[in-house]
Amino acid sequence: MSRTKIKDLLNATDFGQQVIVKGWVRTFRNNQFIAINDGSTLNNIQAVVDFASTDEALLKRVTTGAAVSVTGELVESLGKGQRVEIKVTELEILGDSDAEKYPLQPKKHSLEFLREIAHLRFRTNTFNAVFKIRHALAFAVHKFFNDKGFVYMHTPIITGSDAEGAGEMFRVTTIDFDSVPRNEDGTVNYKEDFFGKSTNLTVSGQLEGELAAMAFGEVYTFGPTFRAENSNTTRHLAEFWMIEPEMAFYDIHDNMDLAEELLKYVIRYALDNCSDELEFLKNRLLEEEKQKAQNERSELDLIAKLNFCLENNFERLTYTEAINILKSSKPNQKKQFKYLIDDWGADLQSEHERYLVEKHFKKPVILTDYPAAIKSFYMRRNDGDVSGKETVRAMDILFPGIGEIVGGSQREERLDVLQKRMEDLHIPVGEMDWYLDTRRFGSAPHSGFGLGFERLVLFVTGMTNIRDVIPFPRTPKNAEF
Amino acid sequence: MSRTKIKDLLNATDFGQQVIVKGWVRTFRNNQFIAINDGSTLNNIQAVVDFASTDEALLKRVTTGAAVSVTGELVESLGKGQRVEIKVTELEILGDSDAEKYPLQPKKHSLEFLREIAHLRFRTNTFNAVFKIRHALAFAVHKFFNDKGFVYMHTPIITGSDAEGAGEMFRVTTIDFDSVPRNEDGTVNYKEDFFGKSTNLTVSGQLEGELAAMAFGEVYTFGPTFRAENSNTTRHLAEFWMIEPEMAFYDIHDNMDLAEELLKYVIRYALDNCSDELEFLKNRLLEEEKQKAQNERSELDLIAKLNFCLENNFERLTYTEAINILKSSKPNQKKQFKYLIDDWGADLQSEHERYLVEKHFKKPVILTDYPAAIKSFYMRRNDGDVSGKETVRAMDILFPGIGEIVGGSQREERLDVLQKRMEDLHIPVGEMDWYLDTRRFGSAPHSGFGLGFERLVLFVTGMTNIRDVIPFPRTPKNAEF
Repeated sequence: MSRTKIKDLLNATDFGQQVIVKGWVRTFRNNQFIAINDGSTLNNIQAVVDFASTDEALLKRVTTGAAVSVTGELVESLGKGQRVEIKVTELEILGDSDAEKYPLQPKKHSLEFLREIAHLRFRTNTFNAVFKIRHALAFAVHKFFNDKGFVYMHTPIITGSDAEGAGEMFRVTTIDFDSVPRNEDGTVNYKEDFFGKSTNLTVSGQLEGELAAMAFGEVYTFGPTFRAENSNTTRHLAEFWMIEPEMAFYDIHDNMDLAEELLKYVIRYALDNCSDELEFLKNRLLEEEKQKAQNERSELDLIAKLNFCLENNFERLTYTEAINILKSSKPNQKKQFKYLIDDWGADLQSEHERYLVEKHFKKPVILTDYPAAIKSFYMRRNDGDVSGKETVRAMDILFPGIGEIVGGSQREERLDVLQKRMEDLHIPVGEMDWYLDTRRFGSAPHSGFGLGFERLVLFVTGMTNIRDVIPFPRTPKNAEF
Repeated sequence: MSRTKIKDLLNATDFGQQVIVKGWVRTFRNNQFIAINDGSTLNNIQAVVDFASTDEALLKRVTTGAAVSVTGELVESLGKGQRVEIKVTELEILGDSDAEKYPLQPKKHSLEFLREIAHLRFRTNTFNAVFKIRHALAFAVHKFFNDKGFVYMHTPIITGSDAEGAGEMFRVTTIDFDSVPRNEDGTVNYKEDFFGKSTNLTVSGQLEGELAAMAFGEVYTFGPTFRAENSNTTRHLAEFWMIEPEMAFYDIHDNMDLAEELLKYVIRYALDNCSDELEFLKNRLLEEEKQKAQNERSELDLIAKLNFCLENNFERLTYTEAINILKSSKPNQKKQFKYLIDDWGADLQSEHERYLVEKHFKKPVILTDYPAAIKSFYMRRNDGDVSGKETVRAMDILFPGIGEIVGGSQREERLDVLQKRMEDLHIPVGEMDWYLDTRRFGSAPHSGFGLGFERLVLFVTGMTNIRDVIPFPRTPKNAEF
């Protein structure tokens, strides 16, 4: 007889059948009721042992965290709180768990404490729910693109290009610090390094994605990206996962439509496929907010917030319109913003984005047509701007509580404009010949965006620290496990 | 009116409709017939221009590689080779392609040449087919595990652990070679490095996968892994993608069953979803084999080979049985093996694996119960072996033409046995406390394996060089694009 997963048993109706369950003890009450969890669902199954006929030494080993195998009859439960339970005929301890030493006790632990024991936190309800939802969102992303005929591209992680310009990079090397090869002029001789040149961890798969889009039409990446930035915030990681679609023949409007459709699709997928997990996290948040003053609590609970997102169009406006709103906003007038908005051209800070999304529009916002000066070289320059107010066809999606969740643009498809822009920014055009080739041979309007996967998981789970939605977070001075 | 993808048009039956197609010119015949490809399918659509009524200067710009937009009527084709075509009313050049300079001419290019222009090779039929199949296989992997309730884990890429023992590692650092921080004793002070310790690129997500399996029951990873090994072969990459499932309560037999089921599932998925691409690659191979002597050609064509794989059980035997077969084999007797098999304990080389798979059994083979001495510390020691012939519950799957495609084992779940083994191998037990915690608290029999994704793609596409099945290969002295 093989084991049955608890998820299947909790839905079973054929009482009287013999079953085997394997899992971990969550609690053991009255020397009689074992709550067993096997990870297949948030919910435990209750196994009832006849303590009179069971060896006392064996019962003593039924401790929180112990791995057990129980064989017995599936029966309708008479107790409250569960529909089915197992009348145990055989109990086996697969692996003990010393109650004195096991770090996870059957009580509430702080998220900070659980972060220290990230190798065990998967065993809690909160993290079971978070990582089940993370899984569902990842699968939904693949399904969304697959159903549309996009091709999944594994763009390189190790890159010889340092022109992506999205942030500080990590060096990848096999050079020994104690015997660094040098050129005659004393500089490091990277020809001796593994790849024969200086290499880094990628900050984005976009440029390579564009190459593929100009052949397959529609592609996407979903892989790890890296920033060697010393920012210790609740929204930044040194290693995080990003989804980057690139599409030939899409203009900025097609791009926004796709991004909005993707976000709504994956949120709906989570609502449809993770109802237990979302319900648990919703209640967890409500419980947490009880500590807060009434006016600091969320207007909508987690599930209502997700549904609200689905039911409303994202607000689309230009950067220029946003600046006008911000300029005349109360926090700007009353000088409550840390960075006051005076003029067109200012880079928007988190406080401004949050004002627009959370106070002014109260829903997701897509900002477009940013000043060229504050955006990347590869973004499509708008035609007909007045001098000094040049803009690009960028589009950033801002989410409540999260800020920027998507950053994208139509790409500059005109070789001469792109080349000029790269020269102005001192980007080594020669090293980027492969990128420019897409503009030399069969160039076409195209677009793409990047979706920060952890920020999406944050939004859907309602968690507030990005370290709590990736299995083993990498941050400055921290690469444990 | 928005554009229609060529894949959809080629299946359309509502003739007379106005359509817009955007794509790239493959060929232009008789100043009249444009073969357009948009990447949505291997197949081109034929657009017929009325050259009499079309500007000559415009027609001159219809060159191989140019991006075009054509508007016209979808009509039944009278010509051979296509069912539908477009009667063009409007032709627009989106991006030119200088025929003199465009590296891809409408003729056969060598794979070696195409590897040099990997940023353009996606535009060929061969690589269109290869990367469509790669996509389909990746999606099939996710679908297989999702349908079974496995949780997708993003295990870390940057790791502080160097005990995985699967091979040479790349260092990840932000230390400047020109000002290396030193301790008083002259050693490098990694406390000053980004993560406050020495860090590397992961060689495997297995150990972290095990942590998650002991909470979720069944998990898998699918991510990039790295080897800093100076091997320039057709089967090795410095950066490659691996799928690593880990399952609590699985013994080695459950593990083999799962691996065989997975491989058959994804191969069947490719057969069901990539028939055009496989047909193309089958014919490509047949063409290539015409250069070979009759006795060197494959017995089965590509599609027959894949079907054969589905229809037959993988042969399962122990290492000891394999050694006996190899010892008495003709190439061993006649000393044709480079490494002759004399005794139990020898590590199997590629030539031995290929003999077993391609000559002896003529089908996929699963070898189990290898000598402990040639396998990793975390593999489950078999009970009752005679001294000096200790074995572990390893299982490697060998594929024709590929060699090892899967490597796995039941994991050592006994704390004392595992700890002893680590000490014997001088693995720093203290640094691996987090790993040992899974054996301290609720340990249970569990298993897992690693499937090299590129080797799978090699097998299914029939390509012979691993550099041709990953978009931008990373190998010693090569990290282009």
